[in-house]
Amino acid sequence: MLKEFASKWTPEINKRLESFLEEKEQVAKNYGEINEKAFRYMKEMILSGGKRIRPILFIAGYLSQGKEPDEGILDVAVAIELFHNFLLIHDDVIDKDETRRGLPTVWKRFQEELGVDQHTAFSLAISTGDILYAFVVEKLAKARIDPEDRIKVLERFTHTMELTGYGENLDVYLPNLPIEEVDEKWVSLIHELKTGIYTISFPLTLGAELAGADEDTLNALYEYGIDAGIAFQLHDDILGVFGDPKKTGKPVGNDIREGKRTLLLLTAYKNADEEQRRILEEAVGSDDEKKIKQAIKVIEETGAKEYVDRVKKELVDEAIERIKGLDLKNGIDRFLEELAVYLITREK
Amino acid sequence: MLKEFASKWTPEINKRLESFLEEKEQVAKNYGEINEKAFRYMKEMILSGGKRIRPILFIAGYLSQGKEPDEGILDVAVAIELFHNFLLIHDDVIDKDETRRGLPTVWKRFQEELGVDQHTAFSLAISTGDILYAFVVEKLAKARIDPEDRIKVLERFTHTMELTGYGENLDVYLPNLPIEEVDEKWVSLIHELKTGIYTISFPLTLGAELAGADEDTLNALYEYGIDAGIAFQLHDDILGVFGDPKKTGKPVGNDIREGKRTLLLLTAYKNADEEQRRILEEAVGSDDEKKIKQAIKVIEETGAKEYVDRVKKELVDEAIERIKGLDLKNGIDRFLEELAVYLITREK
Repeated sequence: MLKEFASKWTPEINKRLESFLEEKEQVAKNYGEINEKAFRYMKEMILSGGKRIRPILFIAGYLSQGKEPDEGILDVAVAIELFHNFLLIHDDVIDKDETRRGLPTVWKRFQEELGVDQHTAFSLAISTGDILYAFVVEKLAKARIDPEDRIKVLERFTHTMELTGYGENLDVYLPNLPIEEVDEKWVSLIHELKTGIYTISFPLTLGAELAGADEDTLNALYEYGIDAGIAFQLHDDILGVFGDPKKTGKPVGNDIREGKRTLLLLTAYKNADEEQRRILEEAVGSDDEKKIKQAIKVIEETGAKEYVDRVKKELVDEAIERIKGLDLKNGIDRFLEELAVYLITREK
Repeated sequence: MLKEFASKWTPEINKRLESFLEEKEQVAKNYGEINEKAFRYMKEMILSGGKRIRPILFIAGYLSQGKEPDEGILDVAVAIELFHNFLLIHDDVIDKDETRRGLPTVWKRFQEELGVDQHTAFSLAISTGDILYAFVVEKLAKARIDPEDRIKVLERFTHTMELTGYGENLDVYLPNLPIEEVDEKWVSLIHELKTGIYTISFPLTLGAELAGADEDTLNALYEYGIDAGIAFQLHDDILGVFGDPKKTGKPVGNDIREGKRTLLLLTAYKNADEEQRRILEEAVGSDDEKKIKQAIKVIEETGAKEYVDRVKKELVDEAIERIKGLDLKNGIDRFLEELAVYLITREK
């Protein structure tokens, strides 16, 4: 059902993204070659794929109340996807990521295609991201929905951006702390803010709210999103260490190499003896294959993998439990159940 | 009149900025020490001064139509000032500026007070700026004005952000081009976008629009802003080379040292003979006092200073001409005349 749902709505979203961006591109062209390029890099990134999971969840939320999305609702769906891409442009600067969706990232294209230095490329990407943020708000302010609803959308929207920003700050800062000083609760909070709320709760609840859902339903969907989002990230952490490189596209033990502060690592560290701690400390952030393999072994031996696996399953059970008994129309109850299970069983 | 006007309205704006930020700070405190600090750096920067020129021009625009600002209008004024500070946080990353309003900049405080590396400090400042951007939109979405007016404000607002972003991209990119490849029109466009529209036309026109000004008045105020804004920047360029270091706080010939592509420099280069061009090329971006002094001499000898001085005066005459005959109440006609003259006669 997930697949059919996505293949029905993805083209609708993409079509509207494309026409919005084409219209906006005409403005950019008045401001010199640099802005023509900036716009093109941004547009090509947005249109080069992406699973459109957030606008799809938004539409699912709307459908769950027995209503069919109209053009106004699709305006909001487009804004939600633009919002995500704005965050990705800034994220790629923050993480110094060089590829996304098979293309060089926006900052990397500035660097490669204009021949400017890295800081200039970062700078152009920061301000190009800020322009995209303006488009998001414009799209929402002009959405063909009731003006009172537009205000509601903007409030939920800005609140989400605020929380996502706090999640991002935590995420950027945590790797600067020694493993033993990182509290599990901060790791879990990052997942709650950056994945649970931002990716799932926010779009799903917003869709349901615009379709007139009651308070209890909204709360249940919000909690579903947090549980499923954290579970998704825990599964991601497991894939980041134990995943099949052929499927994930990342080398074995990639998260250890990158020094990520995951629940998996923190649990292993907590349960480890002195010798095992030494192995973990030496492997985290290192490029040494042998050390990384030893660390992977420690993560299994200390029971950390088993523990995180259990937590993620419990969270998904809880997520499904939360939406039991809600009156969700158009098969969205089944859709959300399938989604939660998919999030923790996918191989990439 | 400018001073009395500012000293009447600045405390009103500051008081409301402070209470808004204190309320928001309570949210940040739920998300760990890093966000408590991020918020504090942002708040202290916003409250540590600044001329509040944009919200003041917004209020002037409103008063010009014979109406007295109420709380809703002051909500918008606060949002305009927050918007400016969001841009400053990102700008300081882009320019790697280390001080602002007598304090270390936001990214610099992250670096100094947390002991993180420069890129981590930049990253935290990028996402802290994004949070502030969310506050701007929230403040506008909740402004105590008519919902239809809120939509109008958001549209003008996002359009301004879009244009300012294009101006920023040009500004970041231009110093990467050799002097002879920089077209005057791009330099003038940067001033139009980043100073004319963003600093003057946008707030002034928005205020007048909310107070019910007619189309002709709005257009005249918009054009006034562009002329006065460009004139302001040309004067700034002159101060940046010929200004009294005791007053400007910057060393003599600072703009030459920084390699800025100003109309002053482009004109000098255009009028220069081969020997003079060599002097300019060697001085731009250099730290050599002697070379900079020679370049300053070339800028005078080629008539560039005189030319830019004339252009700036013509622009101010034009700006004042544009608002002649408008029916501006509350003495705002005189206020705008005084302002335009002040912008090109100030010594710092």
